[in-house]
Amino acid sequence: MTTAFEPLDSGTIPRFAGLPTFMRLPVAEPAQVDIAILGVPFDLGTTNRAGTRHGPRELRNQSSLMRRVHHVTGLSPYDRARVADCGDVIIDPFDLMRSLDIIAAHYDGVREAGALPLTAGGDHLISLPILRGLAKANLNTRGPVGLIQFDAHSDTYDSFFNGSRYTHGTPFRRAIEEGLVDPRRFVQIGLRGAISDAGNYDYAREMGVRIIFIEEFMARGVEDVMAEARAIVGDAPTYVTFDIDVLDPSQAPGTGTPEIGGLDTREAQAMVRLLDGLDLIGADLVEVAPPFDPSGLTALTGATILFELLCVLAGVVEKKKGAR
Amino acid sequence: MTTAFEPLDSGTIPRFAGLPTFMRLPVAEPAQVDIAILGVPFDLGTTNRAGTRHGPRELRNQSSLMRRVHHVTGLSPYDRARVADCGDVIIDPFDLMRSLDIIAAHYDGVREAGALPLTAGGDHLISLPILRGLAKANLNTRGPVGLIQFDAHSDTYDSFFNGSRYTHGTPFRRAIEEGLVDPRRFVQIGLRGAISDAGNYDYAREMGVRIIFIEEFMARGVEDVMAEARAIVGDAPTYVTFDIDVLDPSQAPGTGTPEIGGLDTREAQAMVRLLDGLDLIGADLVEVAPPFDPSGLTALTGATILFELLCVLAGVVEKKKGAR
Amino acid sequence: MTTAFEPLDSGTIPRFAGLPTFMRLPVAEPAQVDIAILGVPFDLGTTNRAGTRHGPRELRNQSSLMRRVHHVTGLSPYDRARVADCGDVIIDPFDLMRSLDIIAAHYDGVREAGALPLTAGGDHLISLPILRGLAKANLNTRGPVGLIQFDAHSDTYDSFFNGSRYTHGTPFRRAIEEGLVDPRRFVQIGLRGAISDAGNYDYAREMGVRIIFIEEFMARGVEDVMAEARAIVGDAPTYVTFDIDVLDPSQAPGTGTPEIGGLDTREAQAMVRLLDGLDLIGADLVEVAPPFDPSGLTALTGATILFELLCVLAGVVEKKKGAR
Amino acid sequence: MTTAFEPLDSGTIPRFAGLPTFMRLPVAEPAQVDIAILGVPFDLGTTNRAGTRHGPRELRNQSSLMRRVHHVTGLSPYDRARVADCGDVIIDPFDLMRSLDIIAAHYDGVREAGALPLTAGGDHLISLPILRGLAKANLNTRGPVGLIQFDAHSDTYDSFFNGSRYTHGTPFRRAIEEGLVDPRRFVQIGLRGAISDAGNYDYAREMGVRIIFIEEFMARGVEDVMAEARAIVGDAPTYVTFDIDVLDPSQAPGTGTPEIGGLDTREAQAMVRLLDGLDLIGADLVEVAPPFDPSGLTALTGATILFELLCVLAGVVEKKKGAR
Amino acid sequence: MTTAFEPLDSGTIPRFAGLPTFMRLPVAEPAQVDIAILGVPFDLGTTNRAGTRHGPRELRNQSSLMRRVHHVTGLSPYDRARVADCGDVIIDPFDLMRSLDIIAAHYDGVREAGALPLTAGGDHLISLPILRGLAKANLNTRGPVGLIQFDAHSDTYDSFFNGSRYTHGTPFRRAIEEGLVDPRRFVQIGLRGAISDAGNYDYAREMGVRIIFIEEFMARGVEDVMAEARAIVGDAPTYVTFDIDVLDPSQAPGTGTPEIGGLDTREAQAMVRLLDGLDLIGADLVEVAPPFDPSGLTALTGATILFELLCVLAGVVEKKKGAR
Amino acid sequence: MTTAFEPLDSGTIPRFAGLPTFMRLPVAEPAQVDIAILGVPFDLGTTNRAGTRHGPRELRNQSSLMRRVHHVTGLSPYDRARVADCGDVIIDPFDLMRSLDIIAAHYDGVREAGALPLTAGGDHLISLPILRGLAKANLNTRGPVGLIQFDAHSDTYDSFFNGSRYTHGTPFRRAIEEGLVDPRRFVQIGLRGAISDAGNYDYAREMGVRIIFIEEFMARGVEDVMAEARAIVGDAPTYVTFDIDVLDPSQAPGTGTPEIGGLDTREAQAMVRLLDGLDLIGADLVEVAPPFDPSGLTALTGATILFELLCVLAGVVEKKKGAR
Repeated sequence: MTTAFEPLDSGTIPRFAGLPTFMRLPVAEPAQVDIAILGVPFDLGTTNRAGTRHGPRELRNQSSLMRRVHHVTGLSPYDRARVADCGDVIIDPFDLMRSLDIIAAHYDGVREAGALPLTAGGDHLISLPILRGLAKANLNTRGPVGLIQFDAHSDTYDSFFNGSRYTHGTPFRRAIEEGLVDPRRFVQIGLRGAISDAGNYDYAREMGVRIIFIEEFMARGVEDVMAEARAIVGDAPTYVTFDIDVLDPSQAPGTGTPEIGGLDTREAQAMVRLLDGLDLIGADLVEVAPPFDPSGLTALTGATILFELLCVLAGVVEKKKGAR
Repeated sequence: MTTAFEPLDSGTIPRFAGLPTFMRLPVAEPAQVDIAILGVPFDLGTTNRAGTRHGPRELRNQSSLMRRVHHVTGLSPYDRARVADCGDVIIDPFDLMRSLDIIAAHYDGVREAGALPLTAGGDHLISLPILRGLAKANLNTRGPVGLIQFDAHSDTYDSFFNGSRYTHGTPFRRAIEEGLVDPRRFVQIGLRGAISDAGNYDYAREMGVRIIFIEEFMARGVEDVMAEARAIVGDAPTYVTFDIDVLDPSQAPGTGTPEIGGLDTREAQAMVRLLDGLDLIGADLVEVAPPFDPSGLTALTGATILFELLCVLAGVVEKKKGAR
Repeated sequence: MTTAFEPLDSGTIPRFAGLPTFMRLPVAEPAQVDIAILGVPFDLGTTNRAGTRHGPRELRNQSSLMRRVHHVTGLSPYDRARVADCGDVIIDPFDLMRSLDIIAAHYDGVREAGALPLTAGGDHLISLPILRGLAKANLNTRGPVGLIQFDAHSDTYDSFFNGSRYTHGTPFRRAIEEGLVDPRRFVQIGLRGAISDAGNYDYAREMGVRIIFIEEFMARGVEDVMAEARAIVGDAPTYVTFDIDVLDPSQAPGTGTPEIGGLDTREAQAMVRLLDGLDLIGADLVEVAPPFDPSGLTALTGATILFELLCVLAGVVEKKKGAR
Repeated sequence: MTTAFEPLDSGTIPRFAGLPTFMRLPVAEPAQVDIAILGVPFDLGTTNRAGTRHGPRELRNQSSLMRRVHHVTGLSPYDRARVADCGDVIIDPFDLMRSLDIIAAHYDGVREAGALPLTAGGDHLISLPILRGLAKANLNTRGPVGLIQFDAHSDTYDSFFNGSRYTHGTPFRRAIEEGLVDPRRFVQIGLRGAISDAGNYDYAREMGVRIIFIEEFMARGVEDVMAEARAIVGDAPTYVTFDIDVLDPSQAPGTGTPEIGGLDTREAQAMVRLLDGLDLIGADLVEVAPPFDPSGLTALTGATILFELLCVLAGVVEKKKGAR
Repeated sequence: MTTAFEPLDSGTIPRFAGLPTFMRLPVAEPAQVDIAILGVPFDLGTTNRAGTRHGPRELRNQSSLMRRVHHVTGLSPYDRARVADCGDVIIDPFDLMRSLDIIAAHYDGVREAGALPLTAGGDHLISLPILRGLAKANLNTRGPVGLIQFDAHSDTYDSFFNGSRYTHGTPFRRAIEEGLVDPRRFVQIGLRGAISDAGNYDYAREMGVRIIFIEEFMARGVEDVMAEARAIVGDAPTYVTFDIDVLDPSQAPGTGTPEIGGLDTREAQAMVRLLDGLDLIGADLVEVAPPFDPSGLTALTGATILFELLCVLAGVVEKKKGAR
Repeated sequence: MTTAFEPLDSGTIPRFAGLPTFMRLPVAEPAQVDIAILGVPFDLGTTNRAGTRHGPRELRNQSSLMRRVHHVTGLSPYDRARVADCGDVIIDPFDLMRSLDIIAAHYDGVREAGALPLTAGGDHLISLPILRGLAKANLNTRGPVGLIQFDAHSDTYDSFFNGSRYTHGTPFRRAIEEGLVDPRRFVQIGLRGAISDAGNYDYAREMGVRIIFIEEFMARGVEDVMAEARAIVGDAPTYVTFDIDVLDPSQAPGTGTPEIGGLDTREAQAMVRLLDGLDLIGADLVEVAPPFDPSGLTALTGATILFELLCVLAGVVEKKKGAR
């Protein structure tokens, strides 16, 4: 379709050369592209081990290892959509609330520009302002969005530490409260790990969120779970959020709150591929914390998940273009 | 039940703050609690790569990431039993035999105090003096105990290096010889890896120990294997020993004798949960060697297995209390 | 059979002592043994992250952890064949083409000496000169060899960077072109990961190579896939090449081109064991890059796969001896 | 003097055993001791690489390697003063300003209790609330305190990021503005590294702060520089703050803003010893960031500097006791 | 002078945000600037531990920590000269000789464009084609250039491995032979370490190169040595090459051929500053090998030395502009 | 003199190829050589962080980076003496006292064979049995030997842990008590760090041992200190022991008991060179603990110190040969 927004050719320019943009793509403005890959270097929502502020840079770095064409579909996202590295959102490391506003405004602009955002976090709190930024037009016309969340944790706590309501453990309660996400079109996959109190999941359950613990996932398998997830969100607009800690920490050690007994990457890749055909309005990959990732494996894994998500989003773009 | 023996609340006191006791619990004496978590910083039984002397400290450190309530049962061990960090057994790093006596005496005291011991090792030789300490009363009344061992290795060699009979490769032969363990109520799960000679497993087999290699485990699955294991030990007193090297080294690299092709943590967690209802007299988690665990993943995994074991032991306590 | 070619006894000489030869074996000439373990410290074929030149040394180092007897078969390769560390092939780090000639000549010598070669690489380009060295006699009498390749990548590109035809992404196209490998007796297992262009696999497919992607493997399982692989190569002479990157990078991070979503070691070990009975003329284990393997896990995994391959090759030796 | 506040005896209890309190000391309340060692796990003031929230724990851990008696003086601080680990100040990771208040109140309490505080940070912003907490009584009676700062940076910027005035680059401007520190009795030693603008040091210079760059230090040497520093602060109450980044990053890599060309530890130790005899009201060691300190060397260095500072503070205690 | 070529303001855009260009500068063409910072990701000349191909990327990454103004001079290079990140030279990883031609042609272009090149390597062989590229105009008018080399090794061997004459151990013999460098205006500082044969330095000495071993440096000190170095090169055009291995490996471990007992960074920085006023035609910083630099310290050190060199080159630019 | 005992030529056989013997030398028996380099993989004397059992292997590994000719003297030890890797002493990891006997007997054999031993440890306790092995003949004819010890610690404690008299903190008290070392010809250089009690050095001082703390060393410098050291031992037989922890931990982090503020390698190398001309009967380099040395820097440093010691011992050999 277009050759302007192609990754550098690794058969000509070695992977170790050049600036590490996402996927070795050109830098551009959202208005120039169909899919904008953005970084949100933010960890002000982190309760324990910080470091996701360094996530976007290392995800860019490891994304130099990505290639053009998905081996299962035989399709290249770059043939189906214009894609670029649209830079980082510049947050304020000393003002959490102001940073949330900056992010929301930025994504409002991305949406206005007509690009689908694919985001490299940052901690999980960033999903909240992203949803705010993406939701405005949608709320006027089609209501709250659906949400598919791959995660070890529900992130629907109410507050921490003297009533802090904006943390990486609370974004999706806020998103429900703010009417950004329809809890009945909201599915969480891969949850596990001990919880602070027995009522931890009550809010989500009461609101109608479907929680699929790792144990249920293991019993049912990828296809069955994803069939249900697809049915839950239906064909209305849906956002996808992928917390790297849904994966087993052997495959993604560099994260703030690792939980053993997680998804393996084969399962995760298969599930992301089964997002194909949904009406996705964007996606994010969050919680990569490079200071806890000495080997770079977490960032490599994250970059590959970003590529998988990109391939799905490119399908959305192609479908919409065909529909015109 | 009790609020005195609760972990620090991570919603008030950040996980990175405070002294790293086991599970962020208070420090107490065994006589004050139902379950005593103890460290045994010992590696004098190690034949090759030492370092488990540093295990208890790093297990404590990573256990700061644990939470209160098990997500599958919805139960908190701290609601079911009084639990505390009962400190380390102070061994003598220059005298293996004396250290074994110190450990045995210490666990005799724990048993006398009426607490179930949950131990963080230390190399696998520590299971021998622990069994000695726990067995005295039992031997008088009910005979040798049953044993469920999760391990890559049988640890039933006779001796190494000029006839050393007390090493981390020999504890369970000694335990059988000393009448501490009933070999017909002894099951080993997850064994694998090349062996020194073809007769390596002969002693265990001749004594009636049931060995379930990883290959058999893969063919049968968690439920089937654990049903057999439960049948083997029956409802008589049983000890559980979990060698971290039963896990795949991608999930537990920091150990002295890693063997590829191991259990994954999802399988291991499921198996530990299926210990529920057995008449357990204690449990240990051994062979975490921090000098070979730069990322801390092994200690995190070990701390989580300790939490899983704690939940099972809390069930034992609750059951016994109910029976009174 | 022979006691001269035995590993050092780890019950007498601690694993940490002594020179780290492969499997703690004696150093010998190929003519003295049935199976020659050789190192090829070479990474001149690497397109991105180099470092496999250091592979043989670290594989030797970690092989100190290996033992004598396979736990599934109960057999020791050292009882079935004479095996030794036959040293490194001394390549020229400033001349790729000359190095290929050196390697080919060296393996021609090994073949002449009557030993089966088991090679520790080195990047994947080394398989080409090894096949050259092994093929001469074979080509005269029985034609091109069969090939079973465990790999994340097809390695059948035509060229890179201004027409470089000898790289670690091209050896098997060259091997087919040179008549060293029969593409209809060539099976590739475990492929995955994005590709540079949609026609990436066209050459291999057109030549008749059987490609089994990880997705097909997951659907069918070890036994089914290996039954097909065995049928493809039949009972004619066959070579086995094992690229460590076929494994998941959580189990083998130290490699130049890691791809997430790979084989796990349990699957890989099971598949290698199912090579038993084939008419193998040699095997290699390639792409271990120690500078990217800080924990040593990749080299440990590689050393264990070498041991598995050795056990299979020992069966070949024994069978041939019995046939005399 | 007292035996109750002694480190564990490492000839009886191995260094690897037991809870890692500071210096292996007992845990106590400030009112029980002459010198309170406290942790302030805080990094909310950090502009780039966070992680000092984990500093106190690792400083405690490495302090297990410390011993009792200073080898130069032959004196033990534990013979001269009662010293204990007085725990961590529990900050609020989501509220910088509230955390500063918590810290100030805590140190007000330490001062009220009559203990000299020795603090393990935490980023450098913590010195501000510590000075607030310590200053109240002093301001009433003797005016602002003197300050000796070992640091690569002046930390007297006005603000960052949209006017944030409370960061680890601004504490000492605030301290001067608030009248906590007398700028004419304030000396900064070891400054170096490029600066954001040429006027970076203007405020400090205009206020009368004495800045001794590393270049001047190298030309003059330890004794001459410390003679001047002692003269500047005189015999009035003085606080000491030691930012670990004053040291060369080869000796202290684990810090957020490393600057090459720093002090070496021999120089730093000699300078700290030359604080002896000053009227010190407390001291801190800040900016140890364990996520950037994989080898633990920075924490070991920090723990040793804490011991050196402790020895100096013990002299203050002894002197005051003698004066009574 | 110009504001267009300024680093990103770290008080507005956090250091962890944005693409990691050199010094956070804009990307531009050499013709747009006075000083072009370039990367040469090349390690084909390396005899043992490769990895400098990854040097430019990590040097860019760590250069995010640099600031604007030199603390000793109070001057900002960005006020004195237009400076930009001019990207990487795209070498051919499979053709050493072609790569040398590519590099030479590229620097010929930089020189034609009128920019002074500041290069981030790459192994030390890159200095040869850089000198070729820079020398053409000079050779016609003023003869060979002078050279100041900071290095642990002389790099004036004749050949390695079957006569390879282009390696990172030979560039300066080639440069002398090709008339690019005047050996009587060539000084080597910091040499040390065992050598292959006693005649190792004979060629350099016979040609008139001045070798200052670390021992002589220690005896004489920075000022005296640099006074001689300045006298040797005089006021004619001179190039500066800084091999990171001149530094002690505690400060620069990530390099292919570390030698203990090296310069410390304080000495190195002082020496680089004393290059001020020379007629420099360019400078390079080579041999940073990130795969051997897990902590990033070597790249941080390298980035700081690049900043020091940049400040000196900015003085050259300013002087020439003033002279017009 | 001889060409048979030469290191592999790194211009022909790359440093990454081949078995890592000490200095890439041939393996031989002591009787074949003038200087025997031996490994003693032993850490049973270690009180806290073990791991020196892995020292000899990593010292061999890093010694691949050594070259032939000393750059200061221009002499090659291999031209002056026959030198070989004489393998490891095979200790018993479960029997400290038996291991001491094995070591003593082994060195008695080396002495009988007429070779000077250069030893790679191992913890510092190994110096005791080495001295026993070397002393027998000497005691009969010339009395106890002199000793020059480079170390952070005196290692003259009496006992630890319930009276253990054979630890790495006690070897030299035992050596004096056993009459192996003449305390009036014994000098300790580089001592520092806090001590367990004020009387720590009393024994050594009372026996006449000369202790030169790091502070005295800094004040006097290399030449002055070594002049005194040489005078103390005189021209009678003397042994040299170099504990790697005498160096600053930035240069040698991988050791069990690091102490900041240590010697730098330039000072240490200069001091070792000033041993030239003494009547040395052997030397050792101890306390390299690879599990605490992730970057390999400590082993590289140790290997270089071994080379420096080798050069000095080669001078002893040459002198004795000349005297015949």
